[in-house]
Amino acid sequence: MTVTPAAITIDIVVYPGFKAMEAVGPMSVFEYANLHLQRRGHPPGYDVRIASCQAGPVRSDTLMSLDATKALDPLALPDNAIIVGARHIREALADSAAIIAWVAAVAPRIKALTALCSGAFFLAAAGVLDGRRATTHWSVAERLQAEYPAIEVDADAIFLRSGNVWTSAGVTAGIDLALALVEEDYGRDLALEVATEMVVYLKRPGGQSQFSAHLLSERTTRPTANCKTGSSSTWTRSSPWRNWRSAR
Amino acid sequence: MTVTPAAITIDIVVYPGFKAMEAVGPMSVFEYANLHLQRRGHPPGYDVRIASCQAGPVRSDTLMSLDATKALDPLALPDNAIIVGARHIREALADSAAIIAWVAAVAPRIKALTALCSGAFFLAAAGVLDGRRATTHWSVAERLQAEYPAIEVDADAIFLRSGNVWTSAGVTAGIDLALALVEEDYGRDLALEVATEMVVYLKRPGGQSQFSAHLLSERTTRPTANCKTGSSSTWTRSSPWRNWRSAR
Repeated sequence: MTVTPAAITIDIVVYPGFKAMEAVGPMSVFEYANLHLQRRGHPPGYDVRIASCQAGPVRSDTLMSLDATKALDPLALPDNAIIVGARHIREALADSAAIIAWVAAVAPRIKALTALCSGAFFLAAAGVLDGRRATTHWSVAERLQAEYPAIEVDADAIFLRSGNVWTSAGVTAGIDLALALVEEDYGRDLALEVATEMVVYLKRPGGQSQFSAHLLSERTTRPTANCKTGSSSTWTRSSPWRNWRSAR
Repeated sequence: MTVTPAAITIDIVVYPGFKAMEAVGPMSVFEYANLHLQRRGHPPGYDVRIASCQAGPVRSDTLMSLDATKALDPLALPDNAIIVGARHIREALADSAAIIAWVAAVAPRIKALTALCSGAFFLAAAGVLDGRRATTHWSVAERLQAEYPAIEVDADAIFLRSGNVWTSAGVTAGIDLALALVEEDYGRDLALEVATEMVVYLKRPGGQSQFSAHLLSERTTRPTANCKTGSSSTWTRSSPWRNWRSAR
């Protein structure tokens, strides 16, 4: 495992109405990564800040605000800026257009740019995704493709890397992407420790299309194999097992 | 689907050092459940409050505080109190012993009690889990069993229900449990919609033992089937597919 002497700086970029889970999931991944590095006698691997158009409290989509300690500044770049998504992305883009301008200004110089869920629209509006493969929440993938035809949108990916630009599916997929960053930065063993601590897969089976509304509408029912509560459950037709079995 | 005329009241019980993900995950589930009920023309199904020993901001284990708007009061009961876990549960129990006293006082009268992750220790210390099946984060399951031999600890369950008492594994498992509550309260269709919105399974395959350190230490390696980034991954020996295949 390679541990860089200086911590990797990460700015979580939020704005009014952002999805709380998409900030807190990755923040927890980096926090637990620091904890497990500390247990091995290493210094913290990540220095995480909350950034927004201006410093101060920023309300999320649920009973939570985050306190932005950093205003976006084209001269004060983190190693990686992670732009979270919002349920009402069109309004967010209009209200927080300064994020688009900031992305356009820093893209040629920043080490990595990351967008979670509908946060991809900020990168798209700044022109960063043109000619790249990218993903987003399944519910807005068609819109992203229609509005930005120069992007190669993959609506099935949980997350994607294209050079120094990372994009992910929605909500919980931000955890998957953050684990991939830890794996890249500090190795698979550390990422696996964080995943087990958080009770998630390091790489989950199958893509996000198994969760989409299109498949929901034609879902089939069968009882669960590992039910602990006695109730039954529903599975989408495109189960991860089918993907796995056909890929063997 | 049955929608109750009055919203179900839920208090998320936090205390200094609580795991941020375990509050925000379930809060997001209930928020999205309300949103999908609203889309169907129904009133909100959940009224969620943040509660703690006293009102005011409560710091989590990462760069986030929640603002408790309600002090725990044995005379002001929610329908369900969800007690989150902490990384340092022994210190949390000592610092927030008022939660134990509150649980003991309200247990005979409250409709439902829920503990996520190591939050189970609050219920255990109040005597609520005696004679019940319960689960907790894999890393403290042995300790819970040793300290409270009258509990039937199931270290493999993602979540468990025993009468009106619910317990879950750690961190992300709080989302699984909250989805189960939505399914019980408002039906499977709504819970499935929320799960797809959050890009998670309504019922995930396999138990939490597939994520435990014991299995990590004897893990085997094979390439992933659905890798989007070109890197390979590691799988624990006890994969969900094995469980599923043997259970068919």
